[in-house]
Amino acid sequence: MTDIADHADHTHHGYITEKDRYLNRLKRIEGQARGISRMVDDEKYCIDILTQISALKSALDAVALGLLDDHLTHCVVDAAREGGAAAEIKIKEASDAIARLVRS
Amino acid sequence: MTDIADHADHTHHGYITEKDRYLNRLKRIEGQARGISRMVDDEKYCIDILTQISALKSALDAVALGLLDDHLTHCVVDAAREGGAAAEIKIKEASDAIARLVRS
Amino acid sequence: MTDIADHADHTHHGYITEKDRYLNRLKRIEGQARGISRMVDDEKYCIDILTQISALKSALDAVALGLLDDHLTHCVVDAAREGGAAAEIKIKEASDAIARLVRS
Amino acid sequence: MTDIADHADHTHHGYITEKDRYLNRLKRIEGQARGISRMVDDEKYCIDILTQISALKSALDAVALGLLDDHLTHCVVDAAREGGAAAEIKIKEASDAIARLVRS
Repeated sequence: MTDIADHADHTHHGYITEKDRYLNRLKRIEGQARGISRMVDDEKYCIDILTQISALKSALDAVALGLLDDHLTHCVVDAAREGGAAAEIKIKEASDAIARLVRS
Repeated sequence: MTDIADHADHTHHGYITEKDRYLNRLKRIEGQARGISRMVDDEKYCIDILTQISALKSALDAVALGLLDDHLTHCVVDAAREGGAAAEIKIKEASDAIARLVRS
Repeated sequence: MTDIADHADHTHHGYITEKDRYLNRLKRIEGQARGISRMVDDEKYCIDILTQISALKSALDAVALGLLDDHLTHCVVDAAREGGAAAEIKIKEASDAIARLVRS
Repeated sequence: MTDIADHADHTHHGYITEKDRYLNRLKRIEGQARGISRMVDDEKYCIDILTQISALKSALDAVALGLLDDHLTHCVVDAAREGGAAAEIKIKEASDAIARLVRS
Protein backbone atom coordinates (compact mmCIF):
# COMPACT_ATOMS: atom_id res chain seq x y z
CA MET A 1 0.00 0.00 0.00
CA THR A 2 2.87 2.37 0.70
CA ASP A 3 5.63 1.85 -1.81
CA ILE A 4 6.34 5.52 -1.34
CA ALA A 5 6.86 5.02 2.36
CA ASP A 6 9.00 1.98 1.86
CA HIS A 7 11.45 3.63 -0.42
CA ALA A 8 11.47 6.77 1.73
CA ASP A 9 14.21 7.04 4.31
CA HIS A 10 12.42 6.34 7.56
CA THR A 11 14.45 8.89 9.48
CA HIS A 12 12.62 11.55 7.48
CA HIS A 13 9.18 10.73 8.88
CA GLY A 14 7.99 13.99 10.34
CA TYR A 15 6.88 12.57 13.67
CA ILE A 16 10.15 10.92 14.52
CA THR A 17 11.59 13.94 16.32
CA GLU A 18 8.58 13.78 18.62
CA LYS A 19 8.35 9.99 18.73
CA ASP A 20 8.46 9.74 22.54
CA ARG A 21 5.73 12.33 22.94
CA TYR A 22 3.52 10.41 20.49
CA LEU A 23 4.24 7.10 22.22
CA ASN A 24 3.26 8.63 25.58
CA ARG A 25 0.01 9.95 24.17
CA LEU A 26 -0.75 6.59 22.58
CA LYS A 27 0.01 4.82 25.88
CA ARG A 28 -2.64 7.03 27.47
CA ILE A 29 -5.02 6.23 24.60
CA GLU A 30 -4.48 2.48 25.15
CA GLY A 31 -5.27 3.07 28.83
CA GLN A 32 -8.47 4.91 27.87
CA ALA A 33 -9.52 2.00 25.63
CA ARG A 34 -8.86 -0.49 28.44
CA GLY A 35 -10.80 1.75 30.84
CA ILE A 36 -13.86 1.70 28.57
CA SER A 37 -13.68 -2.10 28.38
CA ARG A 38 -13.55 -2.27 32.18
CA MET A 39 -16.54 0.11 32.48
CA VAL A 40 -18.65 -2.24 30.33
CA ASP A 41 -17.41 -5.25 32.30
CA ASP A 42 -18.31 -3.49 35.57
CA GLU A 43 -21.71 -2.58 34.06
CA LYS A 44 -21.21 1.15 34.53
CA TYR A 45 -23.80 3.67 33.49
CA CYS A 46 -24.20 3.96 29.71
CA ILE A 47 -23.89 7.75 29.56
CA ASP A 48 -20.58 7.65 31.46
CA ILE A 49 -19.20 5.12 28.97
CA LEU A 50 -20.30 7.37 26.10
CA THR A 51 -18.47 10.31 27.71
CA GLN A 52 -15.27 8.26 27.80
CA ILE A 53 -15.71 7.19 24.18
CA SER A 54 -16.06 10.86 23.11
CA ALA A 55 -12.91 11.72 25.10
CA LEU A 56 -11.01 8.88 23.42
CA LYS A 57 -12.15 10.03 19.97
CA SER A 58 -10.92 13.56 20.75
CA ALA A 59 -7.57 12.20 21.94
CA LEU A 60 -7.26 10.24 18.69
CA ASP A 61 -8.10 13.36 16.66
CA ALA A 62 -5.37 15.29 18.47
CA VAL A 63 -2.78 12.62 17.64
CA ALA A 64 -3.99 12.37 14.03
CA LEU A 65 -3.88 16.16 13.52
CA GLY A 66 -0.36 16.25 14.99
CA LEU A 67 0.86 13.45 12.72
CA LEU A 68 -0.77 15.10 9.71
CA ASP A 69 0.86 18.46 10.44
CA ASP A 70 4.25 16.73 10.80
CA HIS A 71 3.62 14.87 7.56
CA LEU A 72 2.73 18.04 5.62
CA THR A 73 5.69 19.92 7.12
CA HIS A 74 8.21 17.22 6.27
CA CYS A 75 7.15 14.73 3.62
CA VAL A 76 4.95 16.98 1.52
CA VAL A 77 7.29 19.98 1.60
CA ASP A 78 10.27 17.75 0.77
CA ALA A 79 8.39 16.21 -2.14
CA ALA A 80 7.36 19.65 -3.40
CA ARG A 81 10.99 20.77 -3.35
CA GLU A 82 12.16 17.66 -5.21
CA GLY A 83 9.72 18.59 -7.96
CA GLY A 84 8.16 16.17 -10.40
CA ALA A 85 5.06 14.11 -9.69
CA ALA A 86 6.15 13.14 -6.15
CA ALA A 87 4.42 16.13 -4.54
CA GLU A 88 1.15 15.41 -6.35
CA ILE A 89 1.17 11.80 -5.15
CA LYS A 90 1.91 12.86 -1.57
CA ILE A 91 -0.86 15.46 -1.61
CA LYS A 92 -3.37 12.99 -3.07
CA GLU A 93 -2.43 10.60 -0.21
CA ALA A 94 -2.71 13.36 2.39
CA SER A 95 -6.06 14.58 1.01
CA ASP A 96 -7.45 11.05 1.12
CA ALA A 97 -6.25 10.67 4.72
CA ILE A 98 -7.86 14.01 5.66
CA ALA A 99 -11.13 12.91 4.03
CA ARG A 100 -11.14 9.66 6.03
CA LEU A 101 -10.44 11.63 9.21
CA VAL A 102 -13.18 14.21 8.58
CA ARG A 103 -15.69 11.42 7.91
CA SER A 104 -14.69 9.16 10.81
CA MET B 1 -21.38 12.21 38.40
CA THR B 2 -24.27 9.80 37.86
CA ASP B 3 -26.43 9.60 40.94
CA ILE B 4 -29.16 8.54 38.58
CA ALA B 5 -27.10 5.59 37.44
CA ASP B 6 -26.16 4.66 40.96
CA HIS B 7 -29.66 4.39 42.23
CA ALA B 8 -30.79 2.61 39.06
CA ASP B 9 -30.85 -1.16 39.18
CA HIS B 10 -27.77 -2.12 37.20
CA THR B 11 -29.41 -5.17 35.68
CA HIS B 12 -31.57 -2.76 33.69
CA HIS B 13 -28.68 -1.23 31.73
CA GLY B 14 -29.66 -1.74 28.12
CA TYR B 15 -26.34 -3.14 26.98
CA ILE B 16 -26.12 -5.92 29.55
CA THR B 17 -27.91 -8.48 27.39
CA GLU B 18 -25.21 -7.90 24.77
CA LYS B 19 -22.37 -7.46 27.23
CA ASP B 20 -20.17 -10.18 25.71
CA ARG B 21 -20.57 -8.76 22.24
CA TYR B 22 -19.55 -5.29 23.49
CA LEU B 23 -16.58 -6.73 25.39
CA ASN B 24 -15.41 -8.51 22.24
CA ARG B 25 -15.67 -5.35 20.20
CA LEU B 26 -13.79 -3.39 22.87
CA LYS B 27 -11.08 -6.08 22.99
CA ARG B 28 -10.59 -5.50 19.27
CA ILE B 29 -10.52 -1.73 19.84
CA GLU B 30 -7.82 -2.15 22.51
CA GLY B 31 -5.86 -4.22 19.97
CA GLN B 32 -6.26 -1.46 17.38
CA ALA B 33 -4.96 1.14 19.87
CA ARG B 34 -1.96 -1.10 20.68
CA GLY B 35 -1.35 -1.59 16.95
CA ILE B 36 -1.22 2.19 16.36
CA SER B 37 1.30 2.54 19.19
CA ARG B 38 3.43 -0.20 17.63
CA MET B 39 3.25 1.50 14.21
CA VAL B 40 4.69 4.71 15.69
CA ASP B 41 7.33 2.73 17.57
CA ASP B 42 8.27 0.92 14.33
CA GLU B 43 8.31 4.30 12.54
CA LYS B 44 5.71 3.28 9.99
CA TYR B 45 4.50 5.63 7.29
CA CYS B 46 2.40 8.52 8.62
CA ILE B 47 -0.49 8.06 6.20
CA ASP B 48 -0.86 4.39 7.19
CA ILE B 49 -1.03 5.38 10.86
CA LEU B 50 -3.72 7.96 10.02
CA THR B 51 -5.72 5.27 8.22
CA GLN B 52 -5.64 3.12 11.36
CA ILE B 53 -6.68 6.07 13.55
CA SER B 54 -9.69 6.72 11.28
CA ALA B 55 -10.62 3.03 11.47
CA LEU B 56 -10.38 3.10 15.27
CA LYS B 57 -12.57 6.21 15.45
CA SER B 58 -15.20 4.48 13.28
CA ALA B 59 -15.08 1.38 15.52
CA LEU B 60 -15.61 3.62 18.57
CA ASP B 61 -18.55 5.35 16.86
CA ALA B 62 -20.15 1.98 16.15
CA VAL B 63 -19.86 0.97 19.83
CA ALA B 64 -21.11 4.38 21.01
CA LEU B 65 -24.12 4.30 18.66
CA GLY B 66 -24.96 0.77 19.85
CA LEU B 67 -24.76 1.75 23.52
CA LEU B 68 -26.84 4.86 22.86
CA ASP B 69 -29.55 2.88 21.08
CA ASP B 70 -29.65 0.38 23.96
CA HIS B 71 -29.82 3.27 26.42
CA LEU B 72 -32.72 4.95 24.62
CA THR B 73 -34.56 1.63 24.21
CA HIS B 74 -34.24 0.68 27.88
CA CYS B 75 -33.45 3.53 30.27
CA VAL B 76 -35.21 6.35 28.45
CA VAL B 77 -38.33 4.36 27.60
CA ASP B 78 -38.54 3.04 31.19
CA ALA B 79 -38.19 6.55 32.57
CA ALA B 80 -40.86 7.84 30.19
CA ARG B 81 -43.24 5.13 31.38
CA GLU B 82 -42.58 5.89 35.03
CA GLY B 83 -43.66 9.46 34.31
CA GLY B 84 -42.56 12.48 36.28
CA ALA B 85 -39.34 14.36 35.71
CA ALA B 86 -37.21 11.20 35.33
CA ALA B 87 -37.67 11.05 31.56
CA GLU B 88 -36.69 14.70 31.12
CA ILE B 89 -33.49 14.17 33.09
CA LYS B 90 -32.62 11.03 31.11
CA ILE B 91 -33.25 12.80 27.80
CA LYS B 92 -31.17 15.83 28.83
CA GLU B 93 -28.33 13.39 29.68
CA ALA B 94 -28.74 11.51 26.39
CA SER B 95 -28.87 14.74 24.35
CA ASP B 96 -25.68 15.97 26.01
CA ALA B 97 -23.97 12.64 25.26
CA ILE B 98 -25.12 12.82 21.62
CA ALA B 99 -23.77 16.38 21.33
CA ARG B 100 -20.37 15.28 22.68
CA LEU B 101 -20.35 12.38 20.22
CA VAL B 102 -21.30 14.53 17.22
CA ARG B 103 -18.56 17.03 18.10
CA SER B 104 -15.82 14.47 18.89
CA MET C 1 -40.51 6.98 4.67
CA THR C 2 -42.57 8.84 7.27
CA ASP C 3 -45.94 7.22 7.63
CA ILE C 4 -45.45 7.78 11.33
CA ALA C 5 -45.03 11.49 10.77
CA ASP C 6 -48.01 11.67 8.51
CA HIS C 7 -50.41 10.09 10.91
CA ALA C 8 -48.94 11.99 13.85
CA ASP C 9 -50.72 15.18 14.80
CA HIS C 10 -48.38 17.87 13.51
CA THR C 11 -49.00 20.13 16.45
CA HIS C 12 -47.11 17.59 18.56
CA HIS C 13 -43.78 18.01 16.74
CA GLY C 14 -41.37 18.94 19.48
CA TYR C 15 -39.85 21.89 17.71
CA ILE C 16 -43.09 23.69 16.99
CA THR C 17 -43.09 25.68 20.22
CA GLU C 18 -39.71 27.06 19.16
CA LYS C 19 -40.49 27.26 15.46
CA ASP C 20 -39.62 30.96 15.13
CA ARG C 21 -36.30 30.48 16.84
CA TYR C 22 -35.44 27.61 14.46
CA LEU C 23 -36.54 29.64 11.43
CA ASN C 24 -34.30 32.52 12.53
CA ARG C 25 -31.32 30.22 12.94
CA LEU C 26 -31.99 28.65 9.55
CA LYS C 27 -32.28 32.11 7.96
CA ARG C 28 -28.77 32.80 9.30
CA ILE C 29 -27.57 29.43 7.97
CA GLU C 30 -28.95 30.28 4.50
CA GLY C 31 -27.06 33.57 4.73
CA GLN C 32 -23.87 31.69 5.65
CA ALA C 33 -24.31 29.38 2.62
CA ARG C 34 -24.83 32.40 0.34
CA GLY C 35 -21.76 34.05 1.88
CA ILE C 36 -19.59 31.03 1.06
CA SER C 37 -20.84 31.07 -2.53
CA ARG C 38 -19.95 34.76 -2.76
CA MET C 39 -16.47 34.12 -1.33
CA VAL C 40 -15.76 31.59 -4.09
CA ASP C 41 -17.19 33.96 -6.71
CA ASP C 42 -14.97 36.78 -5.36
CA GLU C 43 -12.01 34.35 -5.37
CA LYS C 44 -11.32 34.78 -1.66
CA TYR C 45 -8.53 32.94 0.08
CA CYS C 46 -9.13 29.19 0.36
CA ILE C 47 -8.41 28.96 4.09
CA ASP C 48 -10.96 31.71 4.85
CA ILE C 49 -13.60 29.82 2.87
CA LEU C 50 -12.78 26.64 4.83
CA THR C 51 -13.22 28.56 8.09
CA GLN C 52 -16.70 29.62 6.98
CA ILE C 53 -17.60 26.05 5.97
CA SER C 54 -16.57 24.76 9.42
CA ALA C 55 -18.66 27.50 11.06
CA LEU C 56 -21.66 26.55 8.91
CA LYS C 57 -21.26 22.85 9.82
CA SER C 58 -21.21 23.77 13.52
CA ALA C 59 -24.33 25.90 13.09
CA LEU C 60 -26.06 22.96 11.40
CA ASP C 61 -24.99 20.64 14.23
CA ALA C 62 -26.47 23.02 16.78
CA VAL C 63 -29.82 23.06 14.95
CA ALA C 64 -29.77 19.27 14.50
CA LEU C 65 -28.98 18.65 18.19
CA GLY C 66 -31.78 21.01 19.20
CA LEU C 67 -34.31 19.30 16.92
CA LEU C 68 -33.18 15.87 18.14
CA ASP C 69 -33.58 16.87 21.79
CA ASP C 70 -37.06 18.24 21.06
CA HIS C 71 -37.89 15.03 19.20
CA LEU C 72 -36.75 12.79 22.07
CA THR C 73 -38.54 14.94 24.64
CA HIS C 74 -41.83 14.94 22.77
CA CYS C 75 -42.30 12.22 20.17
CA VAL C 76 -40.21 9.49 21.81
CA VAL C 77 -41.53 10.07 25.33
CA ASP C 78 -45.13 10.19 24.02
CA ALA C 79 -44.61 6.95 22.11
CA ALA C 80 -43.07 5.29 25.18
CA ARG C 81 -46.10 6.28 27.25
CA GLU C 82 -48.55 4.98 24.67
CA GLY C 83 -46.83 1.60 24.95
CA GLY C 84 -46.69 -1.03 22.26
CA ALA C 85 -44.22 -1.10 19.42
CA ALA C 86 -44.49 2.64 18.68
CA ALA C 87 -41.63 3.56 21.03
CA GLU C 88 -39.33 0.96 19.49
CA ILE C 89 -39.99 2.28 15.99
CA LYS C 90 -39.40 5.88 17.10
CA ILE C 91 -36.14 4.95 18.83
CA LYS C 92 -34.91 3.00 15.81
CA GLU C 93 -35.61 6.10 13.69
CA ALA C 94 -33.89 8.40 16.17
CA SER C 95 -30.85 6.10 16.46
CA ASP C 96 -30.52 5.99 12.69
CA ALA C 97 -30.72 9.79 12.54
CA ILE C 98 -28.07 10.10 15.28
CA ALA C 99 -25.79 7.69 13.37
CA ARG C 100 -26.13 9.76 10.19
CA LEU C 101 -25.36 12.92 12.16
CA VAL C 102 -22.30 11.46 13.91
CA ARG C 103 -20.94 10.24 10.57
CA SER C 104 -21.67 13.42 8.57
CA MET D 1 -7.00 38.09 8.77
CA THR D 2 -5.23 36.91 5.62
CA ASP D 3 -2.37 39.18 4.75
CA ILE D 4 -0.88 36.18 3.01
CA ALA D 5 -3.92 35.89 0.78
CA ASP D 6 -3.97 39.56 0.03
CA HIS D 7 -0.47 39.74 -1.27
CA ALA D 8 -0.86 36.47 -3.16
CA ASP D 9 -1.83 36.75 -6.79
CA HIS D 10 -5.48 35.72 -6.81
CA THR D 11 -5.17 33.90 -10.09
CA HIS D 12 -3.09 31.33 -8.25
CA HIS D 13 -5.88 30.19 -5.93
CA GLY D 14 -6.10 26.47 -6.52
CA TYR D 15 -9.85 26.34 -6.93
CA ILE D 16 -10.08 28.96 -9.64
CA THR D 17 -9.72 26.51 -12.51
CA GLU D 18 -12.79 24.72 -11.16
CA LYS D 19 -14.60 27.85 -10.03
CA ASP D 20 -17.79 27.13 -12.00
CA ARG D 21 -18.01 23.61 -10.62
CA TYR D 22 -17.66 24.93 -7.05
CA LEU D 23 -20.25 27.64 -7.68
CA ASN D 24 -22.70 25.02 -8.97
CA ARG D 25 -22.16 22.83 -5.92
CA LEU D 26 -22.61 25.82 -3.61
CA LYS D 27 -25.81 26.81 -5.46
CA ARG D 28 -27.14 23.33 -4.66
CA ILE D 29 -26.00 23.73 -1.03
CA GLU D 30 -27.88 27.05 -0.79
CA GLY D 31 -30.93 25.24 -2.15
CA GLN D 32 -30.52 22.51 0.48
CA ALA D 33 -30.34 25.15 3.24
CA ARG D 34 -33.48 26.84 1.91
CA GLY D 35 -35.20 23.43 1.72
CA ILE D 36 -34.47 22.74 5.40
CA SER D 37 -35.92 26.13 6.34
CA ARG D 38 -39.04 25.33 4.36
CA MET D 39 -39.35 21.91 6.05
CA VAL D 40 -39.39 23.58 9.48
CA ASP D 41 -41.86 26.21 8.24
CA ASP D 42 -44.11 23.43 6.88
CA GLU D 43 -43.72 21.56 10.20
CA LYS D 44 -42.30 18.44 8.58
CA TYR D 45 -41.30 15.42 10.59
CA CYS D 46 -38.22 16.00 12.74
CA ILE D 47 -36.33 12.91 11.58
CA ASP D 48 -36.72 13.92 7.91
CA ILE D 49 -35.29 17.36 8.70
CA LEU D 50 -32.33 15.70 10.46
CA THR D 51 -31.72 13.55 7.37
CA GLN D 52 -31.52 16.68 5.23
CA ILE D 53 -29.14 18.37 7.72
CA SER D 54 -26.81 15.34 7.59
CA ALA D 55 -26.91 15.43 3.78
CA LEU D 56 -26.08 19.15 3.79
CA LYS D 57 -23.14 18.57 6.17
CA SER D 58 -21.80 15.85 3.85
CA ALA D 59 -22.14 18.17 0.84
CA LEU D 60 -20.20 20.86 2.75
CA ASP D 61 -17.49 18.34 3.66
CA ALA D 62 -17.13 17.38 0.00
CA VAL D 63 -16.66 21.04 -1.01
CA ALA D 64 -14.24 21.66 1.87
CA LEU D 65 -12.13 18.59 1.04
CA GLY D 66 -12.01 19.65 -2.61
CA LEU D 67 -10.91 23.20 -1.73
CA LEU D 68 -8.33 21.86 0.71
CA ASP D 69 -6.86 19.50 -1.88
CA ASP D 70 -6.66 22.36 -4.40
CA HIS D 71 -5.04 24.54 -1.76
CA LEU D 72 -2.40 21.95 -0.87
CA THR D 73 -1.72 21.21 -4.55
CA HIS D 74 -1.28 24.85 -5.49
CA CYS D 75 -0.56 27.25 -2.62
CA VAL D 76 1.33 24.89 -0.33
CA VAL D 77 3.43 23.30 -3.07
CA ASP D 78 4.24 26.76 -4.53
CA ALA D 79 5.26 28.02 -1.09
CA ALA D 80 7.41 24.93 -0.50
CA ARG D 81 9.19 25.55 -3.80
CA GLU D 82 9.81 29.22 -3.01
CA GLY D 83 11.58 28.06 0.15
CA GLY D 84 11.92 30.11 3.30
CA ALA D 85 9.32 30.36 6.01
CA ALA D 86 6.40 30.73 3.58
CA ALA D 87 5.74 26.98 3.42
CA GLU D 88 5.70 26.67 7.20
CA ILE D 89 3.15 29.46 7.52
CA LYS D 90 0.96 27.94 4.82
CA ILE D 91 1.10 24.51 6.43
CA LYS D 92 0.28 25.92 9.86
CA GLU D 93 -2.76 27.62 8.29
CA ALA D 94 -3.79 24.44 6.47
CA SER D 95 -3.36 22.29 9.61
CA ASP D 96 -5.51 24.71 11.61
CA ALA D 97 -8.18 24.60 8.90
CA ILE D 98 -8.09 20.78 8.87
CA ALA D 99 -8.44 20.72 12.68
CA ARG D 100 -11.50 22.99 12.50
CA LEU D 101 -13.00 20.78 9.80
CA VAL D 102 -12.36 17.52 11.72
CA ARG D 103 -13.94 19.01 14.84
CA SER D 104 -16.95 20.65 13.14
